[in-house]
Amino acid sequence: MPTTDPNSVGLVSPQKIHFSEPFTLACGHTLPDYDLMVETYGKLNAQKSNAVLICHALSGSQHAAGFYEGEEKPGWWDAYIGPGKAIDTNHFFVVSMNNIGGCHGSTGPTSLNPKTGKAWGSDFPPLRVRDWVHNQAKLADHLGIDQWAAVVGGSLGGMQAMRWALEYPERLRHCVVIASAMKLTAQNIAFNQTARQAIMADPEFMDGHYLENSTLPESGLSVARMIGHITYLSDDGMGEKFGRALRSGSFEQGSDVPVEFQIESYLRYQGSKFSKSFDANTYILMTRALDYFDLAREYQDDPVKAFQQAQCDFAVISFDSDWRFAPERSREIATALLHADKNVFYAEIESPYGHDAFLVPNQPRYEALFSSYMQKVASTCA
Amino acid sequence: MPTTDPNSVGLVSPQKIHFSEPFTLACGHTLPDYDLMVETYGKLNAQKSNAVLICHALSGSQHAAGFYEGEEKPGWWDAYIGPGKAIDTNHFFVVSMNNIGGCHGSTGPTSLNPKTGKAWGSDFPPLRVRDWVHNQAKLADHLGIDQWAAVVGGSLGGMQAMRWALEYPERLRHCVVIASAMKLTAQNIAFNQTARQAIMADPEFMDGHYLENSTLPESGLSVARMIGHITYLSDDGMGEKFGRALRSGSFEQGSDVPVEFQIESYLRYQGSKFSKSFDANTYILMTRALDYFDLAREYQDDPVKAFQQAQCDFAVISFDSDWRFAPERSREIATALLHADKNVFYAEIESPYGHDAFLVPNQPRYEALFSSYMQKVASTCA
Repeated sequence: MPTTDPNSVGLVSPQKIHFSEPFTLACGHTLPDYDLMVETYGKLNAQKSNAVLICHALSGSQHAAGFYEGEEKPGWWDAYIGPGKAIDTNHFFVVSMNNIGGCHGSTGPTSLNPKTGKAWGSDFPPLRVRDWVHNQAKLADHLGIDQWAAVVGGSLGGMQAMRWALEYPERLRHCVVIASAMKLTAQNIAFNQTARQAIMADPEFMDGHYLENSTLPESGLSVARMIGHITYLSDDGMGEKFGRALRSGSFEQGSDVPVEFQIESYLRYQGSKFSKSFDANTYILMTRALDYFDLAREYQDDPVKAFQQAQCDFAVISFDSDWRFAPERSREIATALLHADKNVFYAEIESPYGHDAFLVPNQPRYEALFSSYMQKVASTCA
Repeated sequence: MPTTDPNSVGLVSPQKIHFSEPFTLACGHTLPDYDLMVETYGKLNAQKSNAVLICHALSGSQHAAGFYEGEEKPGWWDAYIGPGKAIDTNHFFVVSMNNIGGCHGSTGPTSLNPKTGKAWGSDFPPLRVRDWVHNQAKLADHLGIDQWAAVVGGSLGGMQAMRWALEYPERLRHCVVIASAMKLTAQNIAFNQTARQAIMADPEFMDGHYLENSTLPESGLSVARMIGHITYLSDDGMGEKFGRALRSGSFEQGSDVPVEFQIESYLRYQGSKFSKSFDANTYILMTRALDYFDLAREYQDDPVKAFQQAQCDFAVISFDSDWRFAPERSREIATALLHADKNVFYAEIESPYGHDAFLVPNQPRYEALFSSYMQKVASTCA
């Protein structure tokens, strides 16, 4: 466990915060109370002006940086959060939470439904991105943070960041939107639907009540993850990493046994690993929130009108090989912001890593631009 | 049934041809005998010089044109085969067959395994594209056709057409390769693997012996088809057709019931329909043949060297919105052919229909170019 790395936030542990007041969701359902799992890195300054909120994506959690006791791999965005990193914990107090509906300790489908005393399962109410944003605002209240220096997120996290700017314009100074979109395309929805279908078709899904039936829809969730995984990588990136290399042996005529390509066993391994550690109902809930998100829907489908609500500055970053959240989607955001007279910094990064690029370390241009924008943010915290 | 359409080949019926001699596959397995389901359209001329072979793709069959008795929808390539159409049955004798391994009457996984007396199921030997080509050559022998005027195919069918040019250089005058590739990319293999995984994860798959167990892996095959379907359409095309339109009702806040996008129910319908009419083992076999295909593998991975075997002329056609068999793949074919000193006609068609474009009617430029090339072919039949 590399806790001696001076650029690591080191050992961390999550904190469960209980909120005892009722919370009404966009769907109309009211949770009587709820828990949020939270991690923080760095120190909140006396003015409480240096707080940065990290919003996680589909399969993320509160564990964005540092190491848990005994853990080999750090949090999911450790490459970009830490002392001297893009989100510099020497300057910022960084807050990261597991969204409700998640499966890392915050109230979600694996929690107990107070009405039945059993796990919620698929009865957990449907969620919208705005629910998470409202939740995150409650957390800010709890932490005594009136205004975030920045709200930052990639992919589904970027959707939360944008929604923040519209819902609580006075509560953030900067909004950093990475590899995201104002709404999904039909193709994106189609991939998500196919993934959900794979889960729901698994007999062990039991209509979403696998926990009380002591089953687990691992094969369905594994296929869902495989679909996701392909679409998060670029065609070229996959080609460079795997090409048509075979897993073992040569590929001779006269062989009666199907030989596997490396990409096949890699994907199956990734799918299987994920399916043992992630909750299938959470996957369904999160992909539905992604599908439903439509930033400008209540603004007559006019994103300029939507962004006119905002008061913060914006950074929008995209990656050229990302075909799931293509640069075109980010350009639409940047263009709408310009037309809404907002300050916007836009960068399109060359990267072979597809949608995953926002998570991948060692990309000098991404690091440099992200860092320099966050330094600008830091200069507003004094 | 629109049999009065002067541009339709009208009522057709398939013919089962039994081949009683043993047939050894590339994997080394020998089928003691086999059946091929075949349809023909138009008349073979006295010189037997006007025969055109149609090679089908992943989910195709012998039924390429015309109508079966009582059928509402014509064969899968009816838009391009018929009197006055691109493959003009006034000039050509068109031969279309179901490849072995298929599920439309030719010997395949649903046929009886002579060793066990039960359906082959997943014990059917693995197939390569060259097996089909060798099979098609046997069919040509049976029909008395020494040389095809053209061998024509889209996608996996285009792979067969190219293999024809290398395996039997003297037996075809033209090779027409549409929306195809010399080999799949890692991403393509990954999609196919995920589709296979979805099928094999279905408990009703029963290791591929569902027929003898009276089960059917419909949900797995349905997910597989959904994956395929998304990748055969273009993002823009899907957007134009479905956008983010909802299946019913409006999408209000306060609704506890997940609302479906049209694309979701469309895909589920398509997947379900397909899963009731197609054999899962065939789907696995055909996608594996796609994955394994590597035109230049035995020619030191040099496609120029491979194509130097060929004696025929070539037409290569691609579609700009096809991201599964991208134009770049077709340009690689055309470039290799040029370097091998072959006559090659190359066209890239603007189309919103993605990979499916090669099947979609009413595309004037595609029709015009395809027709004019086939007229050139016809002029060599006299």
